This record gives sequence, C-alpha cells and structure tokens, in this order.
Amino acid sequence: MTAALTPGTSGRRPDPFAGHASPMGHGNMVRKEDARFLRGRGRFVDDIRLPGMLHGAVLRSPYAHARILSIDTGGAESHPKVRAVITGADLERRGMAWIPTLSHDVAAVLATDKVRYQGQEVAFVVAEDRYAARDALSLIEVEYEPLEPVIDAHRALAPDAPVIRDEIPGRTDNHIFDWEAGDAAATEAAFAAAEHVSSCEMLYPRVHPAPLETCGIVADLDPVSGRLVVYATAQAPHAHRALYSGIIGIPENRIRIISPDIGGGFGNKVAIYPGYLCAVIATSITGAPVKWTEDRSENLMSTSFARDFHMRGEIAATRDGRIQGLRVQVLADHGAFNGTSQPSKFPAGFFHIFTGSYSVPAAHCTVRGVYTNKAPGGVAYACSFRITEASYLVERLVDVLAFDLGLDAAEVRRRNLLRPEQFPYRCATGWEYDSGDYPRAFELALEMAGYDELRREQARGRRTRAETGEGTVMGIGLSFFTEAVGAGPRKDMDIGGFGMADAAELRVHPTGSAELRLSCMSQGQGHETTFAQIVSEELGISPDDIEVIEGDTDRTPFGLGTYGSRSTPVSGAAAVMAARKVRERARLVAAAMLEVSADDLVWDKGRFHVRGDRAAGVGIGEIALAAHSGLELPEGVEGQLDATCVYNPPNLTFPFGAYLCVVDVDPGTGQVTVRRFVAVDDCGVRINPAIVEGQVHGGLADGIGMALMEVMAFDTDGNHLGASFMDYLLPTSMECPSWELGKTVTPSPHHPIGAKGIGESATVGSPAAVVNAVLDAIGVRHADMPLTPAHVWSAIQGRPLRTDLAIG
Amino acid sequence: MTAALTPGTSGRRPDPFAGHASPMGHGNMVRKEDARFLRGRGRFVDDIRLPGMLHGAVLRSPYAHARILSIDTGGAESHPKVRAVITGADLERRGMAWIPTLSHDVAAVLATDKVRYQGQEVAFVVAEDRYAARDALSLIEVEYEPLEPVIDAHRALAPDAPVIRDEIPGRTDNHIFDWEAGDAAATEAAFAAAEHVSSCEMLYPRVHPAPLETCGIVADLDPVSGRLVVYATAQAPHAHRALYSGIIGIPENRIRIISPDIGGGFGNKVAIYPGYLCAVIATSITGAPVKWTEDRSENLMSTSFARDFHMRGEIAATRDGRIQGLRVQVLADHGAFNGTSQPSKFPAGFFHIFTGSYSVPAAHCTVRGVYTNKAPGGVAYACSFRITEASYLVERLVDVLAFDLGLDAAEVRRRNLLRPEQFPYRCATGWEYDSGDYPRAFELALEMAGYDELRREQARGRRTRAETGEGTVMGIGLSFFTEAVGAGPRKDMDIGGFGMADAAELRVHPTGSAELRLSCMSQGQGHETTFAQIVSEELGISPDDIEVIEGDTDRTPFGLGTYGSRSTPVSGAAAVMAARKVRERARLVAAAMLEVSADDLVWDKGRFHVRGDRAAGVGIGEIALAAHSGLELPEGVEGQLDATCVYNPPNLTFPFGAYLCVVDVDPGTGQVTVRRFVAVDDCGVRINPAIVEGQVHGGLADGIGMALMEVMAFDTDGNHLGASFMDYLLPTSMECPSWELGKTVTPSPHHPIGAKGIGESATVGSPAAVVNAVLDAIGVRHADMPLTPAHVWSAIQGRPLRTDLAIG
Repeated sequence: MTAALTPGTSGRRPDPFAGHASPMGHGNMVRKEDARFLRGRGRFVDDIRLPGMLHGAVLRSPYAHARILSIDTGGAESHPKVRAVITGADLERRGMAWIPTLSHDVAAVLATDKVRYQGQEVAFVVAEDRYAARDALSLIEVEYEPLEPVIDAHRALAPDAPVIRDEIPGRTDNHIFDWEAGDAAATEAAFAAAEHVSSCEMLYPRVHPAPLETCGIVADLDPVSGRLVVYATAQAPHAHRALYSGIIGIPENRIRIISPDIGGGFGNKVAIYPGYLCAVIATSITGAPVKWTEDRSENLMSTSFARDFHMRGEIAATRDGRIQGLRVQVLADHGAFNGTSQPSKFPAGFFHIFTGSYSVPAAHCTVRGVYTNKAPGGVAYACSFRITEASYLVERLVDVLAFDLGLDAAEVRRRNLLRPEQFPYRCATGWEYDSGDYPRAFELALEMAGYDELRREQARGRRTRAETGEGTVMGIGLSFFTEAVGAGPRKDMDIGGFGMADAAELRVHPTGSAELRLSCMSQGQGHETTFAQIVSEELGISPDDIEVIEGDTDRTPFGLGTYGSRSTPVSGAAAVMAARKVRERARLVAAAMLEVSADDLVWDKGRFHVRGDRAAGVGIGEIALAAHSGLELPEGVEGQLDATCVYNPPNLTFPFGAYLCVVDVDPGTGQVTVRRFVAVDDCGVRINPAIVEGQVHGGLADGIGMALMEVMAFDTDGNHLGASFMDYLLPTSMECPSWELGKTVTPSPHHPIGAKGIGESATVGSPAAVVNAVLDAIGVRHADMPLTPAHVWSAIQGRPLRTDLAIG
Repeated sequence: MTAALTPGTSGRRPDPFAGHASPMGHGNMVRKEDARFLRGRGRFVDDIRLPGMLHGAVLRSPYAHARILSIDTGGAESHPKVRAVITGADLERRGMAWIPTLSHDVAAVLATDKVRYQGQEVAFVVAEDRYAARDALSLIEVEYEPLEPVIDAHRALAPDAPVIRDEIPGRTDNHIFDWEAGDAAATEAAFAAAEHVSSCEMLYPRVHPAPLETCGIVADLDPVSGRLVVYATAQAPHAHRALYSGIIGIPENRIRIISPDIGGGFGNKVAIYPGYLCAVIATSITGAPVKWTEDRSENLMSTSFARDFHMRGEIAATRDGRIQGLRVQVLADHGAFNGTSQPSKFPAGFFHIFTGSYSVPAAHCTVRGVYTNKAPGGVAYACSFRITEASYLVERLVDVLAFDLGLDAAEVRRRNLLRPEQFPYRCATGWEYDSGDYPRAFELALEMAGYDELRREQARGRRTRAETGEGTVMGIGLSFFTEAVGAGPRKDMDIGGFGMADAAELRVHPTGSAELRLSCMSQGQGHETTFAQIVSEELGISPDDIEVIEGDTDRTPFGLGTYGSRSTPVSGAAAVMAARKVRERARLVAAAMLEVSADDLVWDKGRFHVRGDRAAGVGIGEIALAAHSGLELPEGVEGQLDATCVYNPPNLTFPFGAYLCVVDVDPGTGQVTVRRFVAVDDCGVRINPAIVEGQVHGGLADGIGMALMEVMAFDTDGNHLGASFMDYLLPTSMECPSWELGKTVTPSPHHPIGAKGIGESATVGSPAAVVNAVLDAIGVRHADMPLTPAHVWSAIQGRPLRTDLAIG
C-alpha cells in the first residue's frame, strides 16, 4: 500500500468505504453455518463414534499437593470391561510422562512423583464404555502423602514455602520469571516531579473460559494407512499436529488432526491436555479408537485458567488529571506448570500495552511469575497478551485518580486519550499502535449514553436517597480500551520456533464455484460466512458457492489456528491476498480470451470487461473454465485458478473502543443490576456486521460475568470452590441489559481490507466499565472483582473481602 | 529448457543420468502401498459401509434391441425390504434420463423408449440389503417389443439397417462420424508409383479392460454439511466431480468425490456409468447412503469396451521392402452410444500415429464410426489414442509385406525404422515424436533374443518336421511400437472445455516431512512410491516421510486423473516443478539463515551449504522450520514451504519399444505356447525400475490375452458370448513365459526429468508380436485375433473364421 497520506491524518488511510455502511456486498448475510447448528446437526467431537471405539476416563488427584507413594491398578485391570490402565510410570517408560509447554516449561501428563494441584491427572482407564471406565477409576488405589499446599501467590514467594517444582534439579523456590518493560528511571523521575500520585492494589481473579462444549478427543490409528487420526476440540489443528509429532515422535505427515465443529473455545482449546495424549497412547496400546470427553467439573478444574494477577498500579498526574507517569507491578500466579499458551518468549504474557489508550510520558512495568498449587494458568483467554488485565488496571487507576482528585471520570479520560495525530503511536514497550481516532469513539459513546443527563439523573437520585434512605443507587462506569490482535512474526512472539503466519488456499473450480482452505479454526464465530464474504467481495462469486474449509490438517494449509482475535487480521488477509492473486491470473486469462491487453480490462463485480465497452467481457465462471481447459492460456500462465498465500503480518492491528455502563445497586443487599451498556467499538472495516455485533455481545456478557460473579476461588487446602456451574457462575441473558452498540471505523493501514479483529475487544473493555459503575454507585475508591452482593455489601461497610481465597 | 542442442543429436537432450542406471537415489525401493495391500488392508469402495446404508441393483435388458412398451414396478415396490424403484420415466421427470458423453453424444442412464444393447440399464432398485435388491429385480415387469438387432458394423451401414438412435430427430442411419488424416493425393501418387503393394483386411476384436475390481459407488448426502459425498471407483475424481456437477446441477464445491484404493482401472473407471448416477439419485430420494457394486457379468456386459475396429491396410513399397506409402481405412464399431472417454474432438479415437515407428513418405487414413446394438465402446483402454489398434495394423502389415516379398521381417523393419537424426519427427497427422533411438532398441531386442540363432533353430525344426511330420512348429514374431502419452493442452484434445493439465501441491511440514497432493489417481500402479521418490530426489526428504495424497477432491488439486499413461508425464512433471519451486524458496530462507547470498549456496542432497565450506549449511528440515517460524524470512518470501504447480505439457511424450516373441504351435490342435518374450522398452528416465517392469509385465500379459484368447463376441441376436470369466478368457501366469526385459533410455526433451510414461506400452506393442509369431509358425499370411486353437487350426486349413461373431 503506497497511497500518499493526506497531511494531518497521521498515517491513517482514507476510509475506502465512505459512510461506514457495511462495506461488503453481502453485509449482514445470514450465517452459512447456522442451518446446521439450528437444526441440531452440528457435528462435535463427542458426536463421533467409530466402530470398536473404547472410552477413557481420568483419575484425578484429590490433593492440591501430595507425594505419590504407590499406585495399585490391579483392581481396575480386573474389571471385566477394562482394556487398559495407564499410569505415569507407564508413560515414563515411553519418555512421555512430561511434555513441553509453549513457554519452555514442562508439564506432567500423568503424575509420577507428586501431584501439584487438585484435579491433576494421575491415571487413565480405557474401557468398553464410559460408565465402566468411570467405575474402574474407583478401583485404583493411590497412596498419597499430603504436603503443604501453596495457594496464595504471595505465600509462594516466601523463603519457607514448599518448593512445588522440586523435580527440577537445583530448584529451591517457586519463582518462575521476571519481566519488565518501559523506562524505570524516567518513570521514577516523573513520579518524583508529579503534583499528584494515586496508587491502588487490585486483583484480577482467576477465571475460566468455560466453553459450552468441554474438551474431548477421539484418537484412532487408521488400519489402512497406519496414520494417527485425531479428532479433537482443537483451536489450532496444525499446531497440535506439530506438538503431537514432537512429543510422540511420529512425522507430521503420518498424523491427521480433524477439528470438527467446536462449541466455543475462548483459548481453552489451544493447549494439548493430558487426556488427549493418554487417548493417543491408549489407541496405540489397544489397537482400537479411544474417545475421551471431559465432564464439566474436569473442564473447570484442570484446563487452562486465565488471569490470577495481583497488581499494584501507581499513576502520577497533574492536579487537573493529566497523566505524567504510570508504574505497574504484577505478581502473576501461573499455577503448577507454566503452561501459558499465548505466543510469548516471556511466559508471563505480555501486559504489552499496559499504558492503555492514554498518552503517558513515562511508564514502567514489572511482572513476576510464581508457581502455586493450582491448575496451570496462562491460557490465551481474551486477550492473549494480558491486555484484559492491563486494561482493567489502567481503567481502574484512571477512576481512582478521578476519585482522588474529585474530577469527573469522563473528563480525566478526555484529557489523556491519545489524539489522532499521535498515530502510529509507539507505546512504552515499543509496540506501535497502527491507527485510531479515540476521541471520536469516546464522544460517540458519551453522546449515545446521554452522559450529562445520566450524571444529572444520578445527582437527583442521590438527593432522593439522602432524603428517603430508600431505593437503589445509580452508578456510571466508563472504560476506554486498546486491544492488540493478529500477532505477526515478531521475534518477541516466538513460540518454540513458530512465528505467527497463517495461510489461505483458494481454488476456483472449473464452473466457477470455489473453496477456501484456511489454517484458522472457527469455534462458533462464523468463519464459513465471514471468509466466504471476503472472497466473494474480491471475486464476485456468491458466498453460497464458496466452501470454507477448516479444521482438518489433511485439507488445510499450515498455520497457527484461531485465538487472540487473529482469524480476520491474519487468515483474512491471507484470503484477500489469495483472492487478489487469483483475480490477477484471471485477468491474464480473460485478456487472452478477449484478445486484448490485460491493461485494457476493467474489473467489475465478478467480471472483466474491455475498457470503454461494458458489453465485451467475461465472467469469473467463464474465465475459470478457460483457465482449467488450458486451451487459451497466455504465455507464462500455468493454468487453473488457484492461489496459496501466507500472510506474515508486519504488525498487530489495534482495535479499540469506548464503553459506558449504568448500574443500579441496592446498598442494603449489595445486589447489582446492569441497567444499560453502551459500547462503541472500532475494529476497522466490518465484514459481516451481525457477526461483529455477536462477538461484542458475547464479550460484554463475559465482562459482566467477570465483574459481578465469576471467580475460581480455592480454600486454604487448595480445594476448588468452583468446579461446577452451581459454584462457578456464568452470566445469562437475565443479567445482561439490551446492548446499545455503536461503532467508528478506522481501518488498519496495513491489513489489505483494513480489518482489525473483534473477537476479544468487549471482554477486554467491559469489566472495568462495570466495576467502575458499581464503585461509582457506592462511592468506594476500590474493591476487587467479582462484585457479588456479599463483596459489594462488605465494600460499602468499608471492609472489602478477599475474593480469591475462602480463608477458612 | 533452453540448453543448446548438440549438432547431430536432433533435439535429444544429453542423458543426465549417465550409464542409464537407476537415476533415482532410492531406485527399486519397496512399494510403500504394498504393506497394506499384502496384508489385506487395502480399502476399496465395496469395503465402505456407512450407517443405514442401502443397496442398489440394476435391472438390465435381455434384448439387444427392443422397444419398451411398459414397465410395472408395483411388485418390486411392495417387497418389504425395498425402499425405492427408479425407472427411466422417473429420471425423465428430473431431466436426467440422458447424460452427455465425452464425445458430445448422449447416453441413456435408464432406458426410456428403447433398449439398445443387451445388459442396458432399465431400472434401479434400492433395498435394505443387496440380496433383497437383487430379488426385487425379478418382480419388475417390463414388456418389450423386440427389434432387429444390428451387431455387425458393416450391416449397420446398410441402407435398410434399423436406425438404432432413432430418438435423435432426423436421424436415418447409424453413421456417427468420419475422420481422416494425412495427405490423400500424395498417398494416391505414392501407391500409383510403387513397385509393390501389399494389402490386408484385419479385425481388432472387441475386448474388455476387465479390472479385477468391478465398478462401484457409495453415494451419501452428508447430514451435517448437506454436501454430496461420492465414494467411487473413479480414475479421474475431479473430472467426475465436474460431470456430476453438470449433470445434477450441484456446484462443485458441494460435491466431494473420494476414490479409495482401486483394484485396476485400465480405462474402465474413467467414465461415469448409469449405476453411479442411479445411486446418487437414490440417496437423494431415500435420504440414506446407497451402495451399488457391479457383479462380474455386469462389468463385462455393460461397461466401456475397447477396439472393435474393422481395418483395411495397404502398404506401398519398393521391391526390397522400403515403405513408400501407407493407406488405412477403419470401420469403428462404437456400440449404441458414442461414449468414447478418451480426450478427443474426434470421437473415433485418434489413430493418430498410424504410421507407427517407420519413415513413411506418404500416408492417409480414414476412420468411420458406426452405432451398433452393443454396449458403448470407446474406452481409453491402453491406449487412449487407438495406438494399440494402429500399432497392431502397421506391425501386421509390415509382416504381410515381408511375407509377400519373401523378405525377413526383421530386415524389413530395419530398412524402415525412423533414424535418430529424424527426431523430433513430425508424422502424417502432424504430431511430433519427441525423441527416440529406434535402431538401438531394435538391435538390442534382436541381440537379447539371439535372433539369427532363432531363425536357424526354426529352419532346423522345419526340416525335422518335414521329415517326421511330427512335433510343434516354431514361430518368431517381431513388433516395434511407438506410443504417445501424457496428453497436453492441445486444442485437438479438447474434451468439453477441459484441457489436459494436472496439478501438484507440495507442502513441507515444519519438521521436514512432506505431503504431496495430486490430481492423478493410482489404480495399483504404485503412485505412493513413485511420486514420493520424485520429490525425495528433488528435496532430499526420505520417501517414507512424504505422504502422497490422491483420490479425494477435498484434499487434492484439480486435474484430469490417471489414464493414457499420463501420471508420470503430467502429474510427475507438476510434482518436479513443485519440488523445485519449494527448493528455490528454501534457498532464499537458507541464505537468510546463514547470512550469505543465495547465489553462494550449493544444494547437495537435501542440504544447502555455503560454496567452498561444506560444513556451513542447513538441511531441508531446519529450513522448513525457519520458513514456518517466519522469524528470519527474507524480504519478499511469504513463508512456509509449499508450492502448487500446474503442468500443461507442451507436447506428448513418445515411449517406444522393440518386442520379440517366440511361440510353438501344435499344427494338429492349433494350440499355441508362448516360449519366450523379449521386450526392450524405452520410456525415458525410469523412477522406480521395479514398478516400470511391473507395468511392462502386465501389458505383455494383456497382449498375450488379446492375441490368443480374449474376445467379446456376440451371436446374431446380440447376446453376449463373454459375460463371465468362464467365457471371456484372461491370460494367467500359466500362459506367460518368464519375461526377458531390456531397456534403452532416451529422455523426453520436454519433461523436467525426462520421463515418458510406461503404463500402456506393452499392451500396445505386444499383440502384434504374438500374432506375427503364430502366423510365422504356421506360414499363414494373415488370420485375426484371438488366435485360439480353433482359429489357428482353421487358419492352417486355409479357412480362417470370423472371430467377433458366432454366426448361428
């Protein structure tokens, strides 16, 4: 893209879709995949039944920390329906008791020496049916010697804390890493010179992605080819293939990963879990296909968690609320294994745009990781780069600053938001925000909400309540967030030798229909529709005639799958490139067909016509047939009509948004009701607006959940207090208002159609808005999520509770 | 390829593999696919069982020619296990009673007005099992009005012959087409001026490819995606998809053709047969998967035949046997529908190199096609271009000429074979033979056989027999053939808009194993091995780590499949191109990794090293990982390590060979024993010599079968006299001698590794050698194939029998 930049637009490309109406010809077309989902015809891993298939079950540790003295599998093995029992010792003999994690740590497949968290995998039983497999678990005798569990991240750093990872020679503590970013000295100076400093300790509690479908696998050794065929809930089939290949020692070409329909991922299905590997090993032992499907408790107890960040933020400012510096310290609780599955050399996760959406002259951040006796954390659950935590921290700090200075929270944001002319903007860690017009989005949100009138209503309500002592109190919460998605092949995103490219293979058939094979992987977000629209827009083929193929390593090109909102920014770009490459080959073929120079052809909605003669033209279908016939091919054109493109993004894309939440709080009970939620999102160009809005709806609900009810708490023995949906609460439509959505469109300057990715924005941006609203209502400077009635009531009483530990 | 030609080599490229030893590193590696075949683990269409699958059976016509007065399906429909009965009338309502053939004719799917050959499809029954479906056929009542059957091609042209295709408005005869090639006037002049003319009428009887596995299909409508999934015995899956798409009106992207292991094709599995379409329609009617598998009689009676050419050849020569002219007239019996499935605008088939391997100054050929009441002919059964018939004709004519002039058959050939300096050689029809050294191959065959000593032995035997009147008589038969394979995108090979390109998609995985996706389709000839070796040779990856993928339109690029010996010449070239493209990208990545210029790198068996420093290098596996990581990619390199190439061959390749057969004939019984068979083949560069020789073995056996026993004869009512393997005789190892194989290697100048294709050579070349040997033994000028004992004995008595008709 070499278009001259208009002075004053600071790198922003002129919006090619004037008016910001749906730029795509098919706009809000109905999702192609919904026909099968709505009729109950989705096909998920657990729907797969292979002849002679066996069923696996996992024996899990009841202790958070204990030494394994002995395991007796004799009882289980004599169960008439049991075909195999696998323990850590069996895996040790195969050199597979431990597997590498993406952060250069290792994780146990089945425990050998110790169990390190409650729910950790200890043995795997394979039986003729699921019931027998589960029954046989109780026939395995494990003798444990309980050890002191380390549940609190601060306690984990104490000199006398038990060493959780004592299998690592020489390890004497639970410290994993330290990471820092920004300029410590400049920040120090900024704080020293500041008119005002506000600081606040806060917790982003441990939460779980909790997809509707739990994880599962069917492993099979194809009797004809001898290849390993794995049907699995995998957000990244090709990455899984590479991992299996490395762990098991089978070349990749002898492995096929099929990811059928997936019922939600949210990062939970990026990693390979012990149950998967056990099923694969079990199929090689038994010679039969083996299915393993988690139940809900297993999913909640043992698959990757997110957050669990203990944070301290300090903000230096002028007395009128202009930010001069930001200082952040994070203690990151990564559980027993540093299984962080986001692409990072720094296993902390990035916290990479911790200065948020503001102009911060000096900033410094440190993150320290520790092991605890909890399930491994580090999941890429919206957002991969820990921007959710960072965004929450800075948006809370801004409200704390406003609280301390007695300023309006909107006014403080207005004074500090990055201005359009600052883009591209290089933040404290060196990342370069690609494009944005933050004030426009912010003012739109305020306008949609009627901010000034809301404040007046709030003031009236306070007066009334002061007079009557009755009724709820109203709160208004703001947040402004910047996301970073679509990771590119940057060295600091290296995950064990893999960059972040994705590929698209586009093939137009002889009669003009097409198929698009992608390395990304839909988990319900509508790829079949969005990608068909992308190609349709470029080639003029109806989206109905474009088959989007994902989730099968035998049918799709290599790539890293879907997480971190990267499908549209990366695979979408690859798809556009492939379509344009096809169009350029089509132009050459059309020129030969029409016996004119390619330069004399004009492309118009699926057809090339001769310049100045609209009637003389050929459509993409005719061109496809000619390209396949090979009969009229010009010199140097190989024939057929296909292209494979790999997109290595030169930078991330930076969606952003302004959110405003209105709540009503009952001070007597602490009950919070979300009355309104205004969300203005800018994710660049939108392909299918309904799908974009669906993503926003889901993320806003996520935010309400985290702000008001979700937490994976533990007791001091390390027992999970949220191992079912009775205990781990998710928001329903009852807790959600009717969303009020707005948008601005600032195209990404480096994405071929200016799209930015929307999958995680609302999850990143919404928690702070809700929390800020609740605290605004009750006039409390800070209290930690989740703001359950008990926590709100306690905060009102001036005695905020710790939300992550049920201290006995 | 712009290499300067060495003067005197006439376009031949210097052989890059000095010594003609196996050029490929892995040479005679064991076939990768044999592990599963030898253990009975091949997976063929009939092995596929889908849940709820129904079974189809075809009701066939007992008459060769009859009007259908009525069809009553009531009895069959009331069979308790029958789910559907489909007739031509049902198809007519769907506009699918007739389908286009590749030669621009149409063919009936289920008969509506008339039946036109015995065994023609009349109705399709779908039942819960195969037995019930077959039983229910007898419950269908069809009322026929028999018409005069037209079995003899000559009779078909008589003015009073019944019009077989009277459904075509205005048609008043059975003539299909006339085709001619060569220069009629020059040929006339050559004959007028000739010192000698020999002429001979001969028949190439109707034969059948008779693969071990019959044809079959399982049709399924995927309940999740709604796509049509067809598992079928298809030599050309992508072409089948395009045909189904056109016939049924479903876009190609909604159709998936899966061709699993195939038990022999030989052209029999190129076409789409009525049973396939009926199964597809039945699955849409019943909503269940429908399987249809032919039995042996059905395969022999109703699938595409080959040959059935009534030929007259005239040869003008000098008295010392130098050919001056060749004149050929062919009456081609195409059966009831002109279903010819070779790529041809001229539905006769080409007969395109009818002057064979000789320098013929003037030549002319006409081919006339006629309809008869036999099953449709025109199958691409070795060889697609009717070179089998043409080669037989010219090789018989040369022997007739030698017979008439009293010359030695070897000497006549020696005097007329094309000389190396005549290449590239443009023959009478304009085709250009790419390369050859015919005398070298011919003399090698004579030398291997010990020709002179054989002739002396023959003379001794004759004297002994003259003295004793006892013992067998020995015959020596020669043939020299030129094949034309690997059709390119020539306009005269246009089949309904499709050219002849094929594609290869090569993907090297991050850890250095690879997969190669091809549009061709193995039917047992070892593609998994040959193509793995091709890529291995180019990239240095072990063939065991290269997965060759074919037979699934969802996993492979578009292309026309395998027939006409085109896999190695066309797909093989595409695979080489793809591998070299990958290597060039690998070179750029390696240069970045080693921080040197790409020009300074030397490729050596899977590794690039810096020129002059063998130790400084990186292997293809390391390069693959780096290319996928995207971390070190040089400017302009997209990343990953893959390539898709379409190969549009600029010309055919022309394999050739010299064959010599020695037989012993018992004059008292007419019994022929093949004593020796020397076969010198030149197919250019050989990839896996064992596979090449296996192909030759099969073709030689084919030739013995056609020469001595195979014929699909009819009685005058049009009844098949060969509808089982009791009647249609195939050669076994008992009838075959221990083959004596030799080779020369003349690389094709335009194929990237100089390979030419070997699939059909021996079938083309061997029949004439056997027939020439038998006639040489018994001293008869000509008798038609098959030379069964009865025919040989009759020929000896001077009363040769007609071999294609059992005249009552």
